[in-house]
Amino acid sequence: MNSQLLRVSLKALIPALTLSITTPAMAQFAKPEDAIKYRQSAFALMGAHMGRLSAVVKGEVPYNKEDVARNAAIISTLSSLPWQAFGPGTEGGKAEPAIWKENAKFKSAADRMQAAVAELNTAAQSGNPENLKKALGATGQTCKACHDDFRKK
Amino acid sequence: MNSQLLRVSLKALIPALTLSITTPAMAQFAKPEDAIKYRQSAFALMGAHMGRLSAVVKGEVPYNKEDVARNAAIISTLSSLPWQAFGPGTEGGKAEPAIWKENAKFKSAADRMQAAVAELNTAAQSGNPENLKKALGATGQTCKACHDDFRKK
Repeated sequence: MNSQLLRVSLKALIPALTLSITTPAMAQFAKPEDAIKYRQSAFALMGAHMGRLSAVVKGEVPYNKEDVARNAAIISTLSSLPWQAFGPGTEGGKAEPAIWKENAKFKSAADRMQAAVAELNTAAQSGNPENLKKALGATGQTCKACHDDFRKK
Repeated sequence: MNSQLLRVSLKALIPALTLSITTPAMAQFAKPEDAIKYRQSAFALMGAHMGRLSAVVKGEVPYNKEDVARNAAIISTLSSLPWQAFGPGTEGGKAEPAIWKENAKFKSAADRMQAAVAELNTAAQSGNPENLKKALGATGQTCKACHDDFRKK
């Protein structure tokens, strides 16, 4: 291979390499729309299962330890998913530009939510309705805090 | 309470009672659109994580046991979710009317998918790439079979 050809090949490779180094999260998604759909799906499911626990806490649905534990375990699995789908270049949907402009603040908010969900999961497994009520309230606060700052109205 | 008032109250209650007896799944969703959004979200996330395993099997992404196991565990959790959102009165989206007309056949297809995903999960935890390849292929077949019969083109 002569040096000119080599130079061309390297040049062609650089954008791909840079992309894979700077945006590991994006690599999971072929298009920004895929990332948007992915994170919206994860939030939609989380919202639905939070709603089921909320109905129990409000007394609209009788407390059942197994159901509560199952819902909390699902929320726990889901809570780790959406963040990988906020990589560079995935602006759009209901995401405020602040997610990318104040990314450290967004990451802290995401971490607080996940920590609250871990406690919700523990509370749900405990079988104590009072623990559930407290932990669900605390989790809901972390959802709201992040929505207030980072989700379009 | 006089008897006429009582009759009116009972009459008002009957549709609600009937609904809760015949459609326990619907009770989880306030509106049919909520059920449609829920099941579409579950399928979208499942598809994304199936795609990640597929990229490993195709050699586009290096085999990493932990990543493979995590993706399979997520698919496993998700695989139990969408079915509850196909209750009576939730027609719409990409769902073919056959889901409700041939409900036993649909349920069998859903069961086959969940059984295949359980094997996929076992294969993923085994750390053997060949096991993963076979189990992923088998799971993909159950997805396709159900899409062919029950998803709008």
